[in-house]
Amino acid sequence: MSLPRIAVDAMGGDEGVRVMVDGASMARRRHDKFKFLLVGDEARIKAALEDHPAMRSASEILHADEVVEGDEKPSRAIRRAKTTSMGLAINAVKEGECGAAVSAGNTGALMAMGKIALRTMPGLDRPALAGIMPTLGEQDVVMLDLGANTECDARNLVQFAIMGAAYARIVTGTATPRVRLLNIGTESIKGTDDLRDASQRLTDATGLAMQFDGFIEADKINRGEVDVVVTDGFSGNIALKAIEGSARFVTDLLRDAFTSSLRSKIGFLVSRPATELLKHHLDPNNHNGGVFLGLNGVLVKSHGSANAKGVANAVDVCARLLENDITQRIAADLAELGEDTLRHGANGGANGNGSAASSEAEAAK
Amino acid sequence: MSLPRIAVDAMGGDEGVRVMVDGASMARRRHDKFKFLLVGDEARIKAALEDHPAMRSASEILHADEVVEGDEKPSRAIRRAKTTSMGLAINAVKEGECGAAVSAGNTGALMAMGKIALRTMPGLDRPALAGIMPTLGEQDVVMLDLGANTECDARNLVQFAIMGAAYARIVTGTATPRVRLLNIGTESIKGTDDLRDASQRLTDATGLAMQFDGFIEADKINRGEVDVVVTDGFSGNIALKAIEGSARFVTDLLRDAFTSSLRSKIGFLVSRPATELLKHHLDPNNHNGGVFLGLNGVLVKSHGSANAKGVANAVDVCARLLENDITQRIAADLAELGEDTLRHGANGGANGNGSAASSEAEAAK
Repeated sequence: MSLPRIAVDAMGGDEGVRVMVDGASMARRRHDKFKFLLVGDEARIKAALEDHPAMRSASEILHADEVVEGDEKPSRAIRRAKTTSMGLAINAVKEGECGAAVSAGNTGALMAMGKIALRTMPGLDRPALAGIMPTLGEQDVVMLDLGANTECDARNLVQFAIMGAAYARIVTGTATPRVRLLNIGTESIKGTDDLRDASQRLTDATGLAMQFDGFIEADKINRGEVDVVVTDGFSGNIALKAIEGSARFVTDLLRDAFTSSLRSKIGFLVSRPATELLKHHLDPNNHNGGVFLGLNGVLVKSHGSANAKGVANAVDVCARLLENDITQRIAADLAELGEDTLRHGANGGANGNGSAASSEAEAAK
Repeated sequence: MSLPRIAVDAMGGDEGVRVMVDGASMARRRHDKFKFLLVGDEARIKAALEDHPAMRSASEILHADEVVEGDEKPSRAIRRAKTTSMGLAINAVKEGECGAAVSAGNTGALMAMGKIALRTMPGLDRPALAGIMPTLGEQDVVMLDLGANTECDARNLVQFAIMGAAYARIVTGTATPRVRLLNIGTESIKGTDDLRDASQRLTDATGLAMQFDGFIEADKINRGEVDVVVTDGFSGNIALKAIEGSARFVTDLLRDAFTSSLRSKIGFLVSRPATELLKHHLDPNNHNGGVFLGLNGVLVKSHGSANAKGVANAVDVCARLLENDITQRIAADLAELGEDTLRHGANGGANGNGSAASSEAEAAK
């Protein structure tokens, strides 16, 4: 079977067309069976492809006149879906011309357009945004939701656990990822009713391809003790940004300290290999590529400020998810999950349409 | 007017009686008008006081037979309030024998006993736990709630803003602290209904001794752009722990990097003054002392693993809050806040007893 193509929104991001094309070309060398659809200003894409003959042969260009602005409201972006590079990239997945789309543009617009064009997978109430972070252990950790759903019920959290575990199996190679729910304590009485309910359902469930270990606190996310951290989009976004901000805070302090005296400057130069190692480990480009899990198609968000290496990693995520058929994996895992596990509880029993609709309304604000 | 005494639970914390007495003695040298009530095992307190003759003269000992265990359920701790060092320290505030109590023991038990013994201030629905964190700016930042209230409505958040600003005026010396609500975006449409409602109330309010600047994202907490970050206890706890965990993650990576080769070890030794500066800046002992704001009396939590310097900082917080009469300040600010600001909205109109009761029930779990 031939692999589906990857659509690249070449216009999104702070760095312009060249960084998107350079990045996609870099990823193509690691996944040379893939073909690409580059969406955006044809003249600029052609110019960027001049440096990459192999990529040029593997690519088709789809011209788009317009670009979704960084501060554009999702509701406006949706109305312009037929003319913007982001809209056309997503549409190529909807029409089956591509299996995945990647964009470095406006996250809210991407999510809203992705939900409307690709629709939520059968059996799922809501898609979620998943990201990867470095840890002190051997493997990275997957965290979701990172902001697609401000408020979530127990049923949503159980579904996120399923999706996160499927994703972690692909990116970490672990057969039964260790899954935990983010909470403000590890005792079973801690947190909200929905968290306790979700924990009970995951504890009771059998046959899942994961090891559910209960709750985890936010200071343990990066210790290498967990493969998937499940949370609602509000807490997930707070945790992710707090981690990013705190890492930047410490490295800013470190830079100030190292430039505070001649002696410390010399020490810095001597220990440069060490600090470069740290810089490499903390470089967000190495963990670029947030995935909207739970849609009929793969949709990946590259960070707006990612460099070519970062874009390559985001495209790499697309390729690996397609190679491993993530959508089919999630569907199989959902089928494995007894209907009882999803149906009981305060918000159980819904067929998902209601929730999905309100979720779309939220994204389209 | 003579200053109220400070009650010290000498038994809490991982480090034992001596670190509590050493720390309190250190704080007394900075606030030499204060007297102390040291609560716990009399023989061990007497032994610890032998090194501190001035502290001995300033202190009375109240013997307690029992100690609240670190993993003791708040409901059990409440039943033993008359015999434990923590219970007796709080009771001394309740009876007016002291103005403040500090403990390094079980946080849940301290909060639950504090609420029941000291009661929430008139006009307030719920107390909140506030902490201080370092920033890249000149001043530290106050954040609340850090976990006393898992779920909060708009009215709670407005009250937390008032309390946080009163606290920030004392610890930062700023007359009109910059206050923001923690959210997952800064646009007015972001977040939950309660967050948007609280933002509107604080924007509309007049005569408050604060500058309300809208929303803030979690990666900006430590940039020095805000003096008070207001949030519910769930998100606040997630943010605080994510920040702590991420700072530890980076410093762990740094230590690994610096010990990875002979060259980097030499560089580390040369730049030692710089890394010591960083270590000092990140030492949690420098920002020790979480405050339960909104009770009839000052109640401070010292970190369980704090050293004597950390305990001294927690006692220092007690002293400064008493010197500046925080309780009276909060009462005055609440009176300044129009009743309209608190009363409107979905959850307005309550007299607070209902909320306070459910909050106590939560703490006593």
